[in-house]
Amino acid sequence: MSTVHRPIMKLSIVLSTQPAQFQAATFKGDLEANLSQIASLGYDGVELAIRDPKLVDLDTLESLVHKYNLRVPAIGTGQAWGEEGLSFTDPDPSIRRNAIERIKSHIPVASRFEAIIIIGLIRGIIKPGVDASQAMDWLIAALQECCDAARPYGIRLALEPINRYETTLINNTGQGQELIECVGAENFGLLLDTFHMNIEEPVIEESIGRCGKHIFHFHVADSNRWYPGAGHLDFQSILNNLFSSGYKGWVSGEFIPIPDAETAAQQSLTFLRKLG
Amino acid sequence: MSTVHRPIMKLSIVLSTQPAQFQAATFKGDLEANLSQIASLGYDGVELAIRDPKLVDLDTLESLVHKYNLRVPAIGTGQAWGEEGLSFTDPDPSIRRNAIERIKSHIPVASRFEAIIIIGLIRGIIKPGVDASQAMDWLIAALQECCDAARPYGIRLALEPINRYETTLINNTGQGQELIECVGAENFGLLLDTFHMNIEEPVIEESIGRCGKHIFHFHVADSNRWYPGAGHLDFQSILNNLFSSGYKGWVSGEFIPIPDAETAAQQSLTFLRKLG
Repeated sequence: MSTVHRPIMKLSIVLSTQPAQFQAATFKGDLEANLSQIASLGYDGVELAIRDPKLVDLDTLESLVHKYNLRVPAIGTGQAWGEEGLSFTDPDPSIRRNAIERIKSHIPVASRFEAIIIIGLIRGIIKPGVDASQAMDWLIAALQECCDAARPYGIRLALEPINRYETTLINNTGQGQELIECVGAENFGLLLDTFHMNIEEPVIEESIGRCGKHIFHFHVADSNRWYPGAGHLDFQSILNNLFSSGYKGWVSGEFIPIPDAETAAQQSLTFLRKLG
Repeated sequence: MSTVHRPIMKLSIVLSTQPAQFQAATFKGDLEANLSQIASLGYDGVELAIRDPKLVDLDTLESLVHKYNLRVPAIGTGQAWGEEGLSFTDPDPSIRRNAIERIKSHIPVASRFEAIIIIGLIRGIIKPGVDASQAMDWLIAALQECCDAARPYGIRLALEPINRYETTLINNTGQGQELIECVGAENFGLLLDTFHMNIEEPVIEESIGRCGKHIFHFHVADSNRWYPGAGHLDFQSILNNLFSSGYKGWVSGEFIPIPDAETAAQQSLTFLRKLG
């Protein structure tokens, strides 16, 4: 008699390397204290949100990550949009250029950690006066340039479909898959996030199945963006479908630090580890 | 042997009496054509979104509604915020006064139809520089004044908890119930909307149970704000809990007209009528 066992999930959680406004970055503040806490809770890795690699002492960061025996599955880049307004689809060509160069500057960082580079809000929105097809053309060209630059390092980029209230560009997995066709780079895929999927996907499990090998990274937050278990998403079913689709990557917590970062991180980990 | 039968659901759908930007008003445009279509689809009533009663020929409206044998369970007022910026919580006292007078001007309209007056986005948001407790004080005082004015007509007001992306004031049923305590008027209650609840309520059915007799009106849209059946909400369970809580009111469709208003309205009606 044989039983198929799913490998143990690799769990990570988002940590911002500097102060940030984004409310769903669970951990912010003192870097070493946070890394120590995340490791002691039992996480396998930490997803680093980095606004600008120039502002981070990468040697110190790397040594601290190794000291606490953590991995870095992915690097979040959205703060460059939230704090500086950089985007791939701004009508100002110098802002678009700066956004592309910023993403390219993450490639050596990603290379240190063998991490995926996340394309979240830095893709931008369709600004007033900009034609939607023009914005898409800018987005595709920017992604192609960044993927070309990342390829020699073996680095992959993952775009996150984000719900309608936060962007007007790529809200759901269907639009994400069309974008993958247009970009046409083997190192370009998707980051799926359960909070956004709860709003945008008709049936979350079916969307996961359709995306299949294009899923490069996976975020968990419950329906209310609190830690998994605090809302009404069926994570057992969602994660079963994710791993049945052949996913070999990480399950990374990006949720609001309620009641506080440590409690939320602990609750999430306990809840997810209990799932079959 | 006896079986408890649930009464047949009274179904209505939102119709805007004038052009509006709000994307989830299912029907917009020619009034009589829309009323005729809504009636022929089999709806029992129509929820009227009215920006300003002064802009509407009420006698014509009333005679058309009667001609098509429709009822009007509720009147939506949010366009006064969306199109004119009126709100109960604006720092400008003249804007707050205009918002209160606007809601009072709906009372004779509501009285014609024995309709509930909906307090949606006209409650406003916490604007920059305004203290949250100050905004709540303005909100409570405005609601008390409007409820006092509505009471002699036997008219009730229902505030809709709206998800975090659309307002910073009263996002969930817990906050709604606290507000009911503060307002302290027997003709003030809640309008619950399944689209917003999917984002904000940890467990939708439990929130419905807790609100109980304070639920004055009920909106249905699926998780993606399309017609019920197009997303992943469990409407059988949600509506079972609603009617088990003693709800005697209407189930009103407020969803995005995709693929078009008529198809969405038809799909919703067919789906909801099939539920046990």
